Amino acid sequence: MNSQIVTFLIQCPDQKGLVAKITSFFFERGFNILSCQQYVNALENTYFMRIRLNTEGSDISKSNLEEEFLTLANPLEFKWSVNYGDEIQNVAIMVSHTSHNLYDLLERSKEGGLNCNVKLVISNHNKLRYVAEMFNIPFYHLPISKETKLQQEAQVRDLLEANNIDLIIMARYMQVLSSGFINDYQGRIINIHHSSLPAFQGANPYERAYQRGVKLIGATAHYATEDLDKGPIIDQDVKHVNHESTTKTLKRIGADTEKLVLARAVKYHLNNQIIVSGNRAIVFPETGE
Amino acid sequence: MNSQIVTFLIQCPDQKGLVAKITSFFFERGFNILSCQQYVNALENTYFMRIRLNTEGSDISKSNLEEEFLTLANPLEFKWSVNYGDEIQNVAIMVSHTSHNLYDLLERSKEGGLNCNVKLVISNHNKLRYVAEMFNIPFYHLPISKETKLQQEAQVRDLLEANNIDLIIMARYMQVLSSGFINDYQGRIINIHHSSLPAFQGANPYERAYQRGVKLIGATAHYATEDLDKGPIIDQDVKHVNHESTTKTLKRIGADTEKLVLARAVKYHLNNQIIVSGNRAIVFPETGE
Amino acid sequence: MNSQIVTFLIQCPDQKGLVAKITSFFFERGFNILSCQQYVNALENTYFMRIRLNTEGSDISKSNLEEEFLTLANPLEFKWSVNYGDEIQNVAIMVSHTSHNLYDLLERSKEGGLNCNVKLVISNHNKLRYVAEMFNIPFYHLPISKETKLQQEAQVRDLLEANNIDLIIMARYMQVLSSGFINDYQGRIINIHHSSLPAFQGANPYERAYQRGVKLIGATAHYATEDLDKGPIIDQDVKHVNHESTTKTLKRIGADTEKLVLARAVKYHLNNQIIVSGNRAIVFPETGE
Amino acid sequence: MNSQIVTFLIQCPDQKGLVAKITSFFFERGFNILSCQQYVNALENTYFMRIRLNTEGSDISKSNLEEEFLTLANPLEFKWSVNYGDEIQNVAIMVSHTSHNLYDLLERSKEGGLNCNVKLVISNHNKLRYVAEMFNIPFYHLPISKETKLQQEAQVRDLLEANNIDLIIMARYMQVLSSGFINDYQGRIINIHHSSLPAFQGANPYERAYQRGVKLIGATAHYATEDLDKGPIIDQDVKHVNHESTTKTLKRIGADTEKLVLARAVKYHLNNQIIVSGNRAIVFPETGE
Repeated sequence: MNSQIVTFLIQCPDQKGLVAKITSFFFERGFNILSCQQYVNALENTYFMRIRLNTEGSDISKSNLEEEFLTLANPLEFKWSVNYGDEIQNVAIMVSHTSHNLYDLLERSKEGGLNCNVKLVISNHNKLRYVAEMFNIPFYHLPISKETKLQQEAQVRDLLEANNIDLIIMARYMQVLSSGFINDYQGRIINIHHSSLPAFQGANPYERAYQRGVKLIGATAHYATEDLDKGPIIDQDVKHVNHESTTKTLKRIGADTEKLVLARAVKYHLNNQIIVSGNRAIVFPETGE
Repeated sequence: MNSQIVTFLIQCPDQKGLVAKITSFFFERGFNILSCQQYVNALENTYFMRIRLNTEGSDISKSNLEEEFLTLANPLEFKWSVNYGDEIQNVAIMVSHTSHNLYDLLERSKEGGLNCNVKLVISNHNKLRYVAEMFNIPFYHLPISKETKLQQEAQVRDLLEANNIDLIIMARYMQVLSSGFINDYQGRIINIHHSSLPAFQGANPYERAYQRGVKLIGATAHYATEDLDKGPIIDQDVKHVNHESTTKTLKRIGADTEKLVLARAVKYHLNNQIIVSGNRAIVFPETGE
Repeated sequence: MNSQIVTFLIQCPDQKGLVAKITSFFFERGFNILSCQQYVNALENTYFMRIRLNTEGSDISKSNLEEEFLTLANPLEFKWSVNYGDEIQNVAIMVSHTSHNLYDLLERSKEGGLNCNVKLVISNHNKLRYVAEMFNIPFYHLPISKETKLQQEAQVRDLLEANNIDLIIMARYMQVLSSGFINDYQGRIINIHHSSLPAFQGANPYERAYQRGVKLIGATAHYATEDLDKGPIIDQDVKHVNHESTTKTLKRIGADTEKLVLARAVKYHLNNQIIVSGNRAIVFPETGE
Repeated sequence: MNSQIVTFLIQCPDQKGLVAKITSFFFERGFNILSCQQYVNALENTYFMRIRLNTEGSDISKSNLEEEFLTLANPLEFKWSVNYGDEIQNVAIMVSHTSHNLYDLLERSKEGGLNCNVKLVISNHNKLRYVAEMFNIPFYHLPISKETKLQQEAQVRDLLEANNIDLIIMARYMQVLSSGFINDYQGRIINIHHSSLPAFQGANPYERAYQRGVKLIGATAHYATEDLDKGPIIDQDVKHVNHESTTKTLKRIGADTEKLVLARAVKYHLNNQIIVSGNRAIVFPETGE
């Protein structure tokens, strides 16, 4: 392999010696370990590691590396994945009417803030076509109705497959995806919900927040699961509001939080910082990278 | 009246001329208006004012002032209250096992951070007696069981009446008060809930937050109402947490937020900054006071 | 006047009766007062008011209104301004190499988040032309060198005058403006500084923040004054960072704060929420508007 | 050794294989690695590790462990320390007039929030004696004047030595310690400064913050060094303020931040989470501990 940064994500039953065994495995093969982050869930007796390697100077092939790694991984019951950092991920963004997250993601992607190729934007409305066009990203208008829901979803899936999409970002896409769809893209759909979950799950969170008279308004980025708004939370944040804040004000203040939270979550995902375990997302912090 | 600061809190149907009429009323009587804060709820067509006056140099009596004010208030359908700032409010603190809010309130009260007399601490356990004693505050241990609930509450009420209590602070009192009790002290019971409501209403919010894998942990101070954890929110705040945060960690991080949020809410109340309207608390900010 | 929202900003020596006199003035002329915000600086004995009126149903002309207002304003020594809300302000954005604030301002302006006409973008480099073009905003490349500084500034001033610019936003424009320029646009130039002032005034704040080992990184929006980075602060904010944060990381994290802080400051200015007094900016909060 | 948690803190020149070598060293001796945190400063080519071990089941003595560890440490040029978690640290708190940090530290210490023995409180004034007495902590009043500065410091040092003090907390002690004193307790004096450094170094930060018209007010906990207010920053935080905030308000809002920031910094220190390198404090986050 040429000089590049390889990231392994590992989860397994906890036991003595894991960090020594794993780091020795890579050291013996001449890799420089750039960072090695661990998390032990003592309640569930599980172990998690994110390890980043500089492979400069090693001439092992990917397939040999993975074959050898299995001799370590199998006896220790690893669930693992590896990212060689040599392929930029393909991303699809799904939207409905609201433009702020779309602008934000397209700008970051264009300016190098998100390491991905946004291949297309899909919407059930035509309203935001101009935004995609400003950034020269193909825009697909696929209207949806109760009757055409499954057909529309089939069209979406065709587009995703044709574009080799690795990650789907629901950037205020106001439609519920079918279980089948979500299961086929398990761990690869990130949704932004416009409340600090589990508060205000479901529809119209800003209006309900106004009605409840809250003093904080927030947003949550999470992996989509069958159970709506109950998937593993990647990031969330809030801002202070007060009695003067109408629903409209809450939407405006919330929009800025939605942008930051979704962009951070997408960055964590693209940067291989996340391991999902059950309904929890272990999000390792960046390490000066 | 001697020189002192008088605060009027007013709510009424909105209409033209309110601020001019109210401020002229006080100006004509020689008062200096220190601050005049308004809020118009356009949805409900209601108007709210907090007005602070320096009565120095005026020789009108309280009863005359109130009588004259009625000639303004009645035709305009004011609901109003006045605080002359000459009586420090009497406060009762109710606790169970957890000491951090109790320490915090007693310290602030002792050191001048909360303008009130903490007259007594009531608990269904004896555990925190030593804290009250450190601050020389009478401590009453009134145990409670399913069978004795109403009797215990009667004892509590006797103590509150005997001490002329104006405000009850539920500083992690882990018992549900009866509807009768709450109604008799409507708008005068502040509770701290250890989550950012409406998330995790009810019992064990920290454990449920851990289970849900949240990335924020918070606290909410609200007026107690019959509907548990659904009263008007006075203040709330959160802190960032991560996958390393166990339930124990969440409790520790949350405790600091609980302290700040409850102390702020109590200060707003004692300082006559709050008007409750339906299920919403209008909390006027301090004005350099 | 047709139905519209008029905002008066007033500062004057403090004295009894100001709010009553001012609000009565408007009430007697049939205006509905939408909000009336005050601030008294007791140290300096000065009074500040922001008052918003709905002029629906009044047939007074602007010139008559202002003439009559002078009969109130002159004896009370008001410094005042009025905005009739019928003219959208013209804005010029000045940039150098960094794109994030430019994108953010253009997007907000285009999508209705900032109530202004961005008439042009001026830069001492050609690098960000494509961003202006994406939003169809004229871009002027006016290079600068030590020798050409005054000539370039003259060109800038010509462009500002030709476009009737009301507000200049220095959105990471890395040049010091001359005193003459700043004085001619006093109170109409908003700059974003990439630190939480007064920390790290001057050049390279992110590098110096890294060197100092700070745990917070911030940004400050302020009015430009002759004394660099010492003008009245409109808004500022910070984010937590840690030892892993390199200068590059600080720049990335700081960029998001810069965007939010500058956009809020511009909104406060456009929305007539700010009164400058000496080196302090009184920023009245929005009132549900 | 009986079952206990041992923490090693290590810094050394960066090179390949460090994590593998260190973790293998402990694994081969039968220790369970509870957490292993690293940081590489690529600019300075330095490596930092915090590693926590459960020594249950190992019968190696401390001296043998350290002797063996040297065979690893010396060739790799480690600067290192080890904490066996079997001795609670002795703490001295120094104060002047301001009580909030003192209350906070004493409460946390008493209630188990800080794992230390507060052995004494030293003050140049007698004012806060009652606070120490509430918590049954010896209080020493050692007045200071220009003439008696060195004598007073000698008295302080006698008390510190007599009480085997490991950590000195300057909880708003308004005196500058001599260079000699600071050098003898290098890395063992934590100070709270009432601003977000490097803003408002030196005296009267709240007054200067008011004068500057800031919109944020903060606090910084740092190790004391000869260069006043320039020591390695452990933690810092801020709160939003506005034009209504007088110096008195800033003090009140800042006090809450001072309490949280100092308590966190002390906890990080007591919990062996900090490695100082030059003027930077590497603060490893807690790992579910």
